Amino acid sequence: MPYIQVPEGVPGIRGLFLVRPEVAGPITALTETLLCAPNTLTRGERELIAARVSGGNDCAFCRTSHAAIAACHLGDDALVASVVSDPGGAPLSAKFLALLALADRVREGGRAVRDEDVARARREGATDLEIHDTVLIAAAFCMFNRYVDGLAAWTPADPAWYRERARHVAAHGYGAPVPPALPAR
Amino acid sequence: MPYIQVPEGVPGIRGLFLVRPEVAGPITALTETLLCAPNTLTRGERELIAARVSGGNDCAFCRTSHAAIAACHLGDDALVASVVSDPGGAPLSAKFLALLALADRVREGGRAVRDEDVARARREGATDLEIHDTVLIAAAFCMFNRYVDGLAAWTPADPAWYRERARHVAAHGYGAPVPPALPAR
Repeated sequence: MPYIQVPEGVPGIRGLFLVRPEVAGPITALTETLLCAPNTLTRGERELIAARVSGGNDCAFCRTSHAAIAACHLGDDALVASVVSDPGGAPLSAKFLALLALADRVREGGRAVRDEDVARARREGATDLEIHDTVLIAAAFCMFNRYVDGLAAWTPADPAWYRERARHVAAHGYGAPVPPALPAR
Repeated sequence: MPYIQVPEGVPGIRGLFLVRPEVAGPITALTETLLCAPNTLTRGERELIAARVSGGNDCAFCRTSHAAIAACHLGDDALVASVVSDPGGAPLSAKFLALLALADRVREGGRAVRDEDVARARREGATDLEIHDTVLIAAAFCMFNRYVDGLAAWTPADPAWYRERARHVAAHGYGAPVPPALPAR
């Protein structure tokens, strides 16, 4: 049960938005820009970073949500599961593995990032923009995870809810109105 | 020196915005909403939460920036310094001390927040909105701190720079254009 009064039946961050509607616009726009806008990192890759960071922060709502969205884009549940638990052995490019390792450092703390973490990503072919976006996506999920769990937002238990919501986000992005049949995220 | 190429002479998060201008609007709007918009928590109190969390995350740029802005609002450098280092003995209301303790928990992690942290804030008179905003401000600074330090954004050493910038933000907010004489934050 959330720590503050949130309208019933609206899970996760969207329930919290109903308490403070002014923040919904900027947060949704930031999420849309980071995860959906054109980028040399695919939407699937960016959702994997989101799921990995959320898993590291033990945020069940965000981890399950973004793992399901990543799986929609990538069509490979096993790959998504291995990125969340242990990406070292997953069939990923050396560049993307280096970016995931960088995201892990950011999750730990901004000052945990070392020269060699960035150097590795660059050596494997990551551009400045890809390094920037990886750091900011990881940092943003350190905010979202704390927002959701710091207020104990409602986290559905039914995997079907996450799959249905994921199909909607994969098709329409984060800013699109949620159809009435689907409880808003 | 930043880990990625950032135009020279633009410190902190604003330098990073020049690399990825699309994120500047949402992040600035979120900051303005959380720290400047009308609220039962004063602008000084909200800047204290920002400075405290940034200090805990050891982010010199954000800690120094928001401590200076808090000092502009509150006119009490010693109070600001004690909130950053050890608020227990500072002349603050029991309610605000409970909110600062809640912010400390959020900084640690969303799942570090316990029922009794929220119960204490509520017992001391905090409203649902004040609890929500404290959690989200603390969470947002966990993002900003990681964004700034995860990319090693330029952090000016001269305290005068922070004082001058603080006067501008205290007077005009985060969204206002920065005058040419003042290097942008």
